[in-house]
Amino acid sequence: MSRSINLAVIPGDGIGQEVVAQGLKVLNAALPQDVKLETKEYDFGAKRYHATGETLTDADLDALKQHDAILLGAIGDPSVPSGVLERGFLLKLRFAFDHHVNLRPSKLLPGVGTPLAGQPEIDFVVVREGTEGPYTGNGGTIRKGTPHAVATEVSLNTAFGIERVVRDAYARAQARPRKKLALVHKNNVLVHAGHLWTDIFNKVGEEFPDVTTEYMHVDAATIYLVTQPERFDVIVTDNLFGDIITDLAAAISGGIGVAASGNINPSGEFPSMFEPVHGSAPDIAGQGKADPSATVLSVALLLRHLGYEAEAARIEDAVTADLAERDGTARTTNQIGDALAVRVAG
Amino acid sequence: MSRSINLAVIPGDGIGQEVVAQGLKVLNAALPQDVKLETKEYDFGAKRYHATGETLTDADLDALKQHDAILLGAIGDPSVPSGVLERGFLLKLRFAFDHHVNLRPSKLLPGVGTPLAGQPEIDFVVVREGTEGPYTGNGGTIRKGTPHAVATEVSLNTAFGIERVVRDAYARAQARPRKKLALVHKNNVLVHAGHLWTDIFNKVGEEFPDVTTEYMHVDAATIYLVTQPERFDVIVTDNLFGDIITDLAAAISGGIGVAASGNINPSGEFPSMFEPVHGSAPDIAGQGKADPSATVLSVALLLRHLGYEAEAARIEDAVTADLAERDGTARTTNQIGDALAVRVAG
Ligand SMILES: CC(C)[C@H](C(=O)O)[C@@H](O)C(=O)O
Ligand SMILES: CC(C)[C@H](C(=O)O)[C@@H](O)C(=O)O
Repeated sequence: MSRSINLAVIPGDGIGQEVVAQGLKVLNAALPQDVKLETKEYDFGAKRYHATGETLTDADLDALKQHDAILLGAIGDPSVPSGVLERGFLLKLRFAFDHHVNLRPSKLLPGVGTPLAGQPEIDFVVVREGTEGPYTGNGGTIRKGTPHAVATEVSLNTAFGIERVVRDAYARAQARPRKKLALVHKNNVLVHAGHLWTDIFNKVGEEFPDVTTEYMHVDAATIYLVTQPERFDVIVTDNLFGDIITDLAAAISGGIGVAASGNINPSGEFPSMFEPVHGSAPDIAGQGKADPSATVLSVALLLRHLGYEAEAARIEDAVTADLAERDGTARTTNQIGDALAVRVAG
Repeated sequence: MSRSINLAVIPGDGIGQEVVAQGLKVLNAALPQDVKLETKEYDFGAKRYHATGETLTDADLDALKQHDAILLGAIGDPSVPSGVLERGFLLKLRFAFDHHVNLRPSKLLPGVGTPLAGQPEIDFVVVREGTEGPYTGNGGTIRKGTPHAVATEVSLNTAFGIERVVRDAYARAQARPRKKLALVHKNNVLVHAGHLWTDIFNKVGEEFPDVTTEYMHVDAATIYLVTQPERFDVIVTDNLFGDIITDLAAAISGGIGVAASGNINPSGEFPSMFEPVHGSAPDIAGQGKADPSATVLSVALLLRHLGYEAEAARIEDAVTADLAERDGTARTTNQIGDALAVRVAG
């Protein structure tokens, strides 16, 4: 059997460059001999934006479409106005490739620090909707710059979009030992979207009688995340609430240095994209200070998505072992990447 | 000088009844002899809704308008569909009385537990906008119950509404020793509302050159709240983000058993309303298990709002002392209220 992976690599801005290099190093170490890895690097990000004014063109999308998956470092730089690269590149790509399952696992690994007292057991995954909600860009501003300005943001929610991500989350919950699924929304205030989510959540649940469910308002969820994080198994939520609670989830389970994510198109119609939850961190860029673990764990998600389960698990084990043995000695981005590659290959 | 307070009291549902009784007890103990306290109780909540179908009528609003302030326990019961009392009573009142400054202080008092390791210094106040954003109820659903359903939620943001709450927050920051103000929003995604908030935040800041400012995305704010809560002094944010981060803020600074809030109309055109951040907790209602401290601290905010600064401080000192001396012995709601009243009177 001859196998191959045709990967699009987008290092992006700031520490994106450094961490993606380590991600690729570990990917190479993990792949069996018979798998042919082809990579093509793309130069999206602040530099290209300044040079050309482009963030992501139709031709870019056509090129990216040819790949089996995308590995992204981070996009964003203070020299670009807030929102330009986020909306023009990252969200554009998530929407264009219909990445409706934004998968964000949170696991507090042994030896890893948490701001919470008492080292709680944390092992859950957030399934964040990725193509709807308040992220659609729908809205506008009138009378900008005057005392009579009005700005709107419209959250768009469809039964189609909710049902598919909710079903995905149920299936993930069913496949886990605890089989628990929590819906997080704010259906007592955002009654239109909230009731649509809740109704569909309940209806789809009938197909998964062995999954235990609960509903929780997003404000209450932030409380439980810090007081009872062991309560969670799988969480499904909308795009904006998912954005907020996954940063909190990352913070309590080792920090954004180890938080991985996948922007998944489950049908495979378009390539899925894998990226660390952290940003481009321009303040520490180019200094070898960034922890590549989040990117390496994103590579594991990528491999699992492409069907390389054993290789994904080997990478996760390597990161777990590396974190457990950290003794406070500072290592460079490159050194951590090397250590992980050695473990994975060994 | 003859002084008086004409207070509307809304015990509401569940533990609301119990905690409000203690709030009034402590209020009576705190008030100087010459202040005449008149109270009128209103029966809003689940019971009235079931009996009459009403949540808050125009006549109710007219009656409430006559008062100097409102003390609310909690509204909400599982027997009422989600959203009915929230939108029909609580939000209706906040909007009708233009409670645009939703004030939520977070202070980790000595001896009080926090889920965070290392007992950090927490002393900040969130100024949450209370009359705009995604809370306006604007939106709708088409094709409900079909696979083609679409639901929208519209966030409305006006320069008028943003500027007044931002200015209020700057003034509060200026009056505090550290003079720091953080704007929390998501202006890289919600670019319409986010840029309006950011522009106004920067412009109003020119009037407060001695206030140090920073901008933070809401997702990042949840990280800092658990990793560096000492970083915050005053936070200003929109209605929904404020809802979310103040529950997290309550969780890290002693829990919702001690989280107070004020729904303030600074102009005094309408009475302001003071309430604990917690809900009606039907699971423990009627058992004397609820901690009335959050309500008592809300009474302190009420007194401060009405100009009784010394009395407000005395209540806060009493709660601080009571919390510091707790030794784990369980006390009833009533016993805690009695203890606080004794301290305040003494
Ligand atoms: C950069 C930003 C647009 C993005 C988001 O809000 O989704 C980020 O915070 C994330 O969580 O991936
Ligand atoms: C009950 C609900 C409508 C309310 C809100 O969302 O504002 C509550 O969570 C709060 O924070 O006061």
